[in-house]
Amino acid sequence: MTPAHQHGGTGGGHDLAGLVPVDDHLADVAAMIRPLTPVELALAEAEGCVLAADVTAGHPLPSFDNSAMDGYAVRAIDVASATERSPVTLPVSGLVAAGDTGAYAVAPGVSVQVMTGAQLPAGADAVVPVEWTDGGDAKVAIRRAAEAGHAVRRAGDDARAGEPLLSAGTVLGPAQLGLVAAAGGGTAVVRPRPRVVVISTGNELAEPGSPLTPGKIWESNSFMLAAAARQAGCLAYRSPVAPDEPRRLLEMIESQLPRADLLITSGGVSMGGPNDVVKDVLTGLGTVTFRKVAIQPGMPQGFGVVGPDATPIITLPGNPVSAYVSFQVFVRAALEAMLVTRELTLPVRRAVLSGPLKAPAGRRAYLRGVLDTAGETVAPLGHQGSHQLATLGRANALVIAPEQVTAMAEGDEVDVMSLP
Amino acid sequence: MTPAHQHGGTGGGHDLAGLVPVDDHLADVAAMIRPLTPVELALAEAEGCVLAADVTAGHPLPSFDNSAMDGYAVRAIDVASATERSPVTLPVSGLVAAGDTGAYAVAPGVSVQVMTGAQLPAGADAVVPVEWTDGGDAKVAIRRAAEAGHAVRRAGDDARAGEPLLSAGTVLGPAQLGLVAAAGGGTAVVRPRPRVVVISTGNELAEPGSPLTPGKIWESNSFMLAAAARQAGCLAYRSPVAPDEPRRLLEMIESQLPRADLLITSGGVSMGGPNDVVKDVLTGLGTVTFRKVAIQPGMPQGFGVVGPDATPIITLPGNPVSAYVSFQVFVRAALEAMLVTRELTLPVRRAVLSGPLKAPAGRRAYLRGVLDTAGETVAPLGHQGSHQLATLGRANALVIAPEQVTAMAEGDEVDVMSLP
Repeated sequence: MTPAHQHGGTGGGHDLAGLVPVDDHLADVAAMIRPLTPVELALAEAEGCVLAADVTAGHPLPSFDNSAMDGYAVRAIDVASATERSPVTLPVSGLVAAGDTGAYAVAPGVSVQVMTGAQLPAGADAVVPVEWTDGGDAKVAIRRAAEAGHAVRRAGDDARAGEPLLSAGTVLGPAQLGLVAAAGGGTAVVRPRPRVVVISTGNELAEPGSPLTPGKIWESNSFMLAAAARQAGCLAYRSPVAPDEPRRLLEMIESQLPRADLLITSGGVSMGGPNDVVKDVLTGLGTVTFRKVAIQPGMPQGFGVVGPDATPIITLPGNPVSAYVSFQVFVRAALEAMLVTRELTLPVRRAVLSGPLKAPAGRRAYLRGVLDTAGETVAPLGHQGSHQLATLGRANALVIAPEQVTAMAEGDEVDVMSLP
Repeated sequence: MTPAHQHGGTGGGHDLAGLVPVDDHLADVAAMIRPLTPVELALAEAEGCVLAADVTAGHPLPSFDNSAMDGYAVRAIDVASATERSPVTLPVSGLVAAGDTGAYAVAPGVSVQVMTGAQLPAGADAVVPVEWTDGGDAKVAIRRAAEAGHAVRRAGDDARAGEPLLSAGTVLGPAQLGLVAAAGGGTAVVRPRPRVVVISTGNELAEPGSPLTPGKIWESNSFMLAAAARQAGCLAYRSPVAPDEPRRLLEMIESQLPRADLLITSGGVSMGGPNDVVKDVLTGLGTVTFRKVAIQPGMPQGFGVVGPDATPIITLPGNPVSAYVSFQVFVRAALEAMLVTRELTLPVRRAVLSGPLKAPAGRRAYLRGVLDTAGETVAPLGHQGSHQLATLGRANALVIAPEQVTAMAEGDEVDVMSLP
């Protein structure tokens, strides 16, 4: 058993009294957030954004009856007797290609050649695929009957005019963006991407790529948290690392406020020691509150709004895994509130545990694991300490151990949160 | 039953002989791709890229023994008798904060105050959490024994020097990027983001936002496919829409080649009619081959390499759902080959179908559905025609019907591909 396991398993030195339940903290974080004011963006810019208004079809989709295949538009009754042995031959009175914008018609006993996507000529009620014919130009021999409606796409059979296509709160992924375009929308009304500034704090932090000095560690949280914010649809910026000097940190926070819809700090929030500079600086500033949440990892949390624009700030613990889990659980909830969507909560499913896991009493634990591609079995990983980032690099899921559970066994069915 | 269903269920006008199996086409598409030459990028730029080389720990992580909590570094033997009723009091000979870079030691019978992340002073083998003490500065009363190793993170207990951290082919998500940073890497050797140019073709296409003319439809595939490519980690560009004029299309393809690692066209590949301009222009150009694949939607496919740099081109059908499914199934396979990764294939899991679905004989079908958050049940959607994009906008998964299956019933366990 590693020290980290002992720590987790015994509650370490932590007093479990007065811990705020995870769901209460989630609700409190969301409650401090005001939604971002919607903006209208060109389609390509709106990619990945959250719709701020429902999208309805302004016209029927498709807007006109058209052919689903290359072939011949006919009246079905005229080809009803066609067979391999006894084809029906019809004159071909013209050709309509996709994009042709004239007015076309099929007279009784006549056909019009049509390409995929072409308007269905008036009078026609079916398209005979070219494969069922001799492909003729002036006249065509049809070897098989086509029922009324065959290979015809009726106006409105994708969506009727006025039909809801997408609801507010939907993330505009590729398919949704395509749908807005197909319905004729050149712009979309969306919540802007939240601007997130990440400030890592700590005298121990050295920039990656620089030489190692004993006592220092390489800074990783700002890279990780900025990437996590971008993955969740934000514009994210790394601030320079803040030293453990209250005045310097305060200056940094104040200078970053104008560019932030949300500030995230990591580190400096543990037990109120001399290095808890984030706690020192922010306590009493704006509405910021610090508390211990009944979660593992990620117990020390702070949140509130600061500055002239009441900018939300969330202070995450400095251990990398604690910061990561806090982001996925709490910061995503804040972003959801900002974007008025429910699509940022990571999916939780049931899966069978393929090995044992320990969990701390009295706290909801998020433990690293590997979910198989079928989503049926989750393998717990070793080295679950909150500083053990290597394990996180291999994980694709978090096994959730409820507050009252201290051990889970192979074969247990458990809740598993998929990581993005 | 809609026309689209009839079309699917009966094979429409399609001759099923000579269809290329999906897996053969996947293999052929991947086989034409050469991997992109690796580049070294700064961490922030490498976000979302695929590692081209394994990352190993150059130093132990952490690189020095350190404290997991705020507290007092001690020799465990010195506090073994400590209890609530009979605390052990030790002098405090100093304080080590995180980031302090001196050399520190704990003498027998003495303690040193330590902050989370601080170096563990030489001689100490445990940290007594501040919560188990009176928090004294000059001397400290310890009310509980700490075993050797308590709240100590040993050098290398995250990763030993030389230990593999991430393997080539891994996508650098937030956690992986954090891990590279934590291991001191200021850069990463990755495959560059593939540059993908999307060319939609067709005289029928009008730009979204412009007025509707009968016979025309709004262009949506280039928005959708460019977004899908970005979602898969590419830099994607929309070319202007190409009309059904061979010379103009050829000019466009040639002018886009220098900026493309992969060209994607949509439309113009159906049955060899007068509007199959993509087929006309590309047949005989480079190694381009057209074929029918045993898939629904997305049967007409073309691929090959063209131009002086043997740039791969994939020609997708013009129906929006066909183009989308083709991207997720075939283009992702090409991108995987380009990036030497297996992380772009969309996950397939087993789930229970909550309603019936029809599928075409002789072709593998990808049918739109909604997978519940638990990943256990998938609800089939109506309107499965390959032009019916509204259904795709609501789907989060594709139900896969194997080639020989023509009907699936409520309660069937089926393969389901999750959409990104």
